[in-house]
Amino acid sequence: MPSNRAVAYKGPGKVEVIDIDYPTFELKDGPGVNPANVGRKLPHAAIIRTIATNICGSDQHMVRGRTTAPVDLVLGHEITGEVVEVGPGVEFVKVGDIVSVPFNIACGRCRNCKSGKTGICLNVNPDRPGSAYGYVDMGGWVGGQANYVLVPYADWNALVFPDRDRALEKILDLALLSDIFPTGFHGAVTAGVEVGSTVYIAGAGPVGLAAAAGAQLLGAAVVIVGDLNDERLAQARSFGCETVNVGEGAVPDQLEQLLGVPEVDAAVDAVGFEARGHGHGAKAEEAPATVLNSIFDITAAGGAVGIPGLYVTGDPGGVDEAARRGSLSLSLGTAWAKSLSFTTGQCPVMRYNRQLSQAILHDRVQIAKAVNATAIPLEDAPQGYAEFDAGAATKYVLDPNGYLGV
Amino acid sequence: MPSNRAVAYKGPGKVEVIDIDYPTFELKDGPGVNPANVGRKLPHAAIIRTIATNICGSDQHMVRGRTTAPVDLVLGHEITGEVVEVGPGVEFVKVGDIVSVPFNIACGRCRNCKSGKTGICLNVNPDRPGSAYGYVDMGGWVGGQANYVLVPYADWNALVFPDRDRALEKILDLALLSDIFPTGFHGAVTAGVEVGSTVYIAGAGPVGLAAAAGAQLLGAAVVIVGDLNDERLAQARSFGCETVNVGEGAVPDQLEQLLGVPEVDAAVDAVGFEARGHGHGAKAEEAPATVLNSIFDITAAGGAVGIPGLYVTGDPGGVDEAARRGSLSLSLGTAWAKSLSFTTGQCPVMRYNRQLSQAILHDRVQIAKAVNATAIPLEDAPQGYAEFDAGAATKYVLDPNGYLGV
Amino acid sequence: MPSNRAVAYKGPGKVEVIDIDYPTFELKDGPGVNPANVGRKLPHAAIIRTIATNICGSDQHMVRGRTTAPVDLVLGHEITGEVVEVGPGVEFVKVGDIVSVPFNIACGRCRNCKSGKTGICLNVNPDRPGSAYGYVDMGGWVGGQANYVLVPYADWNALVFPDRDRALEKILDLALLSDIFPTGFHGAVTAGVEVGSTVYIAGAGPVGLAAAAGAQLLGAAVVIVGDLNDERLAQARSFGCETVNVGEGAVPDQLEQLLGVPEVDAAVDAVGFEARGHGHGAKAEEAPATVLNSIFDITAAGGAVGIPGLYVTGDPGGVDEAARRGSLSLSLGTAWAKSLSFTTGQCPVMRYNRQLSQAILHDRVQIAKAVNATAIPLEDAPQGYAEFDAGAATKYVLDPNGYLGV
Amino acid sequence: MPSNRAVAYKGPGKVEVIDIDYPTFELKDGPGVNPANVGRKLPHAAIIRTIATNICGSDQHMVRGRTTAPVDLVLGHEITGEVVEVGPGVEFVKVGDIVSVPFNIACGRCRNCKSGKTGICLNVNPDRPGSAYGYVDMGGWVGGQANYVLVPYADWNALVFPDRDRALEKILDLALLSDIFPTGFHGAVTAGVEVGSTVYIAGAGPVGLAAAAGAQLLGAAVVIVGDLNDERLAQARSFGCETVNVGEGAVPDQLEQLLGVPEVDAAVDAVGFEARGHGHGAKAEEAPATVLNSIFDITAAGGAVGIPGLYVTGDPGGVDEAARRGSLSLSLGTAWAKSLSFTTGQCPVMRYNRQLSQAILHDRVQIAKAVNATAIPLEDAPQGYAEFDAGAATKYVLDPNGYLGV
Repeated sequence: MPSNRAVAYKGPGKVEVIDIDYPTFELKDGPGVNPANVGRKLPHAAIIRTIATNICGSDQHMVRGRTTAPVDLVLGHEITGEVVEVGPGVEFVKVGDIVSVPFNIACGRCRNCKSGKTGICLNVNPDRPGSAYGYVDMGGWVGGQANYVLVPYADWNALVFPDRDRALEKILDLALLSDIFPTGFHGAVTAGVEVGSTVYIAGAGPVGLAAAAGAQLLGAAVVIVGDLNDERLAQARSFGCETVNVGEGAVPDQLEQLLGVPEVDAAVDAVGFEARGHGHGAKAEEAPATVLNSIFDITAAGGAVGIPGLYVTGDPGGVDEAARRGSLSLSLGTAWAKSLSFTTGQCPVMRYNRQLSQAILHDRVQIAKAVNATAIPLEDAPQGYAEFDAGAATKYVLDPNGYLGV
Repeated sequence: MPSNRAVAYKGPGKVEVIDIDYPTFELKDGPGVNPANVGRKLPHAAIIRTIATNICGSDQHMVRGRTTAPVDLVLGHEITGEVVEVGPGVEFVKVGDIVSVPFNIACGRCRNCKSGKTGICLNVNPDRPGSAYGYVDMGGWVGGQANYVLVPYADWNALVFPDRDRALEKILDLALLSDIFPTGFHGAVTAGVEVGSTVYIAGAGPVGLAAAAGAQLLGAAVVIVGDLNDERLAQARSFGCETVNVGEGAVPDQLEQLLGVPEVDAAVDAVGFEARGHGHGAKAEEAPATVLNSIFDITAAGGAVGIPGLYVTGDPGGVDEAARRGSLSLSLGTAWAKSLSFTTGQCPVMRYNRQLSQAILHDRVQIAKAVNATAIPLEDAPQGYAEFDAGAATKYVLDPNGYLGV
Repeated sequence: MPSNRAVAYKGPGKVEVIDIDYPTFELKDGPGVNPANVGRKLPHAAIIRTIATNICGSDQHMVRGRTTAPVDLVLGHEITGEVVEVGPGVEFVKVGDIVSVPFNIACGRCRNCKSGKTGICLNVNPDRPGSAYGYVDMGGWVGGQANYVLVPYADWNALVFPDRDRALEKILDLALLSDIFPTGFHGAVTAGVEVGSTVYIAGAGPVGLAAAAGAQLLGAAVVIVGDLNDERLAQARSFGCETVNVGEGAVPDQLEQLLGVPEVDAAVDAVGFEARGHGHGAKAEEAPATVLNSIFDITAAGGAVGIPGLYVTGDPGGVDEAARRGSLSLSLGTAWAKSLSFTTGQCPVMRYNRQLSQAILHDRVQIAKAVNATAIPLEDAPQGYAEFDAGAATKYVLDPNGYLGV
Repeated sequence: MPSNRAVAYKGPGKVEVIDIDYPTFELKDGPGVNPANVGRKLPHAAIIRTIATNICGSDQHMVRGRTTAPVDLVLGHEITGEVVEVGPGVEFVKVGDIVSVPFNIACGRCRNCKSGKTGICLNVNPDRPGSAYGYVDMGGWVGGQANYVLVPYADWNALVFPDRDRALEKILDLALLSDIFPTGFHGAVTAGVEVGSTVYIAGAGPVGLAAAAGAQLLGAAVVIVGDLNDERLAQARSFGCETVNVGEGAVPDQLEQLLGVPEVDAAVDAVGFEARGHGHGAKAEEAPATVLNSIFDITAAGGAVGIPGLYVTGDPGGVDEAARRGSLSLSLGTAWAKSLSFTTGQCPVMRYNRQLSQAILHDRVQIAKAVNATAIPLEDAPQGYAEFDAGAATKYVLDPNGYLGV
């Protein structure tokens, strides 16, 4: 049995690389595993040796102690790897295949999966529709920031790259297909971005940058990214976006300077519930509704708003009672007067990942460069988490098995 | 010049029938007319003699004093009539045509109109996109609860019924095409109602009942209407809806009894900002976010929510400071966890009215019966307003010119 | 092992009920089985005892000798039944479940299945995308006009009716979910039928009648069915359709009498390649392009045409060389001038069957009555085939195991 | 009255620049004017001084004598210009505005216009839905290859570029918005091109090249253009397309070499009814169905086919009786087996032109370069027609008033 090192949550502000068991074709009890899932047989699963497994902003919510995640929960839901073993129920995925794994775990058999809504699969999470690897309250599937990870329903979930060599050449780009590239793209799609649109992306973290790259790929005329973090804004400019520092003047005014009008056709909230007010440093207090209300102001009448940024049903660290329950004070009147529409929720990665892989493999998009994907050793994960939390304009990609050569 | 009697707002709780000028092909100054619209030339307009002009729930917001509507504002945006005069720029609409007039005033020449978004026309309201007859802050177009009304951009706005006799036979049904039938239908469409859906409609007022009839027309398997008003719920049952009295137990429980599950595929908010909490009489205090939060609870993951109910940007009578600004405390976390989507705003009537007229004329829907449309003389409008405000399960249709024989 | 009687093709014009093997979890060699499929392991399959298994117009193409179907091919792709055994790879479907089986066999793991295109699954038919039970050149899956049939990828393919008793009460209606109801509905959907549409359905066979019922369910204002067979036209009138006998005058003229205009908004070709010219008896010669060309004439500019009627790539019995190759002389110029669009191909049943089952179970549609579904014993299948071929206005439903009590 | 020089059809193979009348706000009798349109009042029109007016492949059909166009018909439907006069019914378009004029003439008041189907307007062509400037059987609207042209329903039809200087800087690109860029883009859109698609464009003429550029803008992974003309294929390669010379080997084989598979996700027919067989020179005989049948072969199952290439209802020069009636022998069986869908007809330019103008103005696409747009003096039009007909890889843009400086 190969050894299996993995990144685990160790309490607020703390992650460590620990030893965990090598995966088996049964879901064993462990930190965060839903009792109803313990002992679940997984003949449809594949075990993969990770090639790339990324740190995600939504991992940070757990690490910051903003959730009820238990200590020793193994983190990681952005998984790319090589199949090393398949269960007896796997027919099409083969040992040796290089695969991208959507962060949504989905059964491929329920009503929602059948209609492509893999972000709200009914059969994988006893608590509610939808699941993910290595995440609190998601059923207890073991995270993928590890040497090895088990992928259930592998024929359904795994996206196989048919040409191994070509895949490995582009692996840093393809590694972003498990979550942030489709997630950002979904934000742009659900914001109604089309050829010629003007687009505002709130947030220049990896999802925001991916949304920006996605909007460009969809043919947007102008993509404007807003954030408080100058380093991240510089990153956005590096691939042709316009930027606004939301701490340096009203957003509508800054848009008017760029576009001649104080509004855009489409907007994406790539920030979520840990949004901060528009001030630097101490002034930038948490203000959960601020991003959405600002978006209502600057989205043109008839526009749509994509909300890939995570909003939670309970947040122990919320700024007030309402925030702790996941309630936000939203200017619905403004939105209604403008006939806006909204789309929330997990991106159903499978809806997009194959198409986006084609765009990557045919050099139509440089997503790794756009989000500044940077490979680091698995053992350096704690430092990666810390730097990312401090606002580094970097998407950290862990390299547990040396494929990435770091 | 024929005399022109009209229903006017006379202060909180008060409407009167007054004499107003016969329309001209120019927008004259008057109560609520935007200065930028005064003197506007309207060669593209038609003057119509009203056949039916209905009292709408959104008129009530003004009459209750919940807006800044000025005294003497002429009310009425639900207009059906006979063309008696056309301006020199009118080419296709003819004198003698029986027409339905969408409550949205739209120019038919701007970017939004060209893409069918007639609820947010850019050229008719100097304040912001979108307009309506007889409504505060909508540019100042004179209301249609009168003997005669002017309809601008008549070739674009008027829906001509090609067969006069057949139209007059079904006139009480066709009278509902100017607003509530399309508005309710839009709620159902944007809630994603399709063949086989289970649907919840919050609110059994005319728009809610129209949404219910619309959902049936779209092939919904089950339509459930919720309200506190038993008379209105009885009206919903009269055409095959299931009902829940939201004051008599938790909605999810009542749904479970009806459907076997505590949730529906699609939901419509046909209530809007004057929503009340779930209690009878004195207990039913205004609670603006209660309907939407309840809908988030009972809409299945992956569902959509249509919000034809009006939410305003400012409400002098709001229950608290947030409500007065049009802000609501919404459980966005719950919505996000379920991947819900939302559509707000005025219904673009033109997107639906022709198709719905076909359904009426070919006896596929009995919308007048569904909403209990009842014709009353124009001079009885004040009583109609009062009874409607008191919760009558009736849609009042004014008959200013005797076409309806009341 | 229970005995297994089945309907087999025995040469042009001949079907017989024969003994076949009880299904196993492996695809065995047999008449029409593709060599590449022989020996295929099927741990994901379920064995079902048939409750209802219908004779389909597309079976007739084989029986008439218009295909290369081998003698002893077991017929039947319209399957409803009770699960009696499941393979080790089946997780959600249970023994005792009452299920509807889409005629499309689909793997639920390929690119096409993942995007809902189950009519062109890539993994079940070695010859080309798409497959069906009991059909020539479809991979060799054994037909379901039998006591028992094997359903591969059962968790994906089977639609479970959660309430057994309610399902058995409506079983003649639910039996039509395996093919013709979704197929006809797909024709209506792809023809762009919406609330208020005027619709023409070419062909009053079971698929045409199902398309008509589907169009009604979608809210069509008027549904007009055309055929040469008066008995079938009477059947169409029995549930509220208008009809035209295409042998009794030009179709546009007949439409004009019904609608006031010689054209419809949407049209469905429910006939396919064995179309006949517009003459009675001897005059009604086969004319493969006649239905489509007629539809191009009577569809309004901007309309869409749904083509659920089967067109084949090779037809040994074609009227001429072009027909034998599956080529038709189509008035594309007329279609182009009107900006028509077309959708061809197998209906992806899974896209619709759950929703349609809800409409049936909640009494929104009486599809069995619309198509005159009539249960007969399995042993009477030869007579059923003959009567159906002679033009009976009947949808024959075989009752192999006595569930239907005939 | 300024003089007005214009390009006129003078018989098969012949065009000349002649003097015509300066436009008036009434449609006067003249070559090709439908009697029902003679004397039509046009207070809603604008007169524009042409800036750019392009020669189109569909003009060539007339010039080659393949239509019933009368001698002296003024040609030209690709019009960009400066407004010099407006009728009394024009409200928003102003003298001095730089505008692009969709080749579709549309009233902006009929049912089809209201739903965005401006290619089949019901009120501008007495013969049938849809119209264009300077085209046979389209109502008789005078063509725009002239110094001045009248644009009816100007507020509806004209796309105003808000920034005159910026528009003039990009004028060769913007000149392509009147027809070929939206037409090619429509081909790509209706072929279902999306991010990551592999796309085949049949035809490397201007529309084909525009479709290719449009497909790139939509995010296609690979765009492959096929033609017999090496110069045009070189043009396609100049902006990143792959190419196949259809005279040099089977198309599926050539696709397989490029893609690893012999098929594409989406295909566009940018050739139309004058398609030629796959042979060079004398071997390349006209074979009207060859392009579409080839596309059916190489489009993957489930794909869509956009058909912007023109097919006509009557062609005096057709190769056989069927072709003369506009009938084609199409392999519908093949298409059906693959569940293909098709969209035909004029592009409704208004659906796309604003968005595409944004993409041009923000440097997201270099369409003039892609199609090799080349300005020539109006008086050189006859030579432009001849060179284009001979297969030049050039889009000729006439410069009647010196704006383009040639």
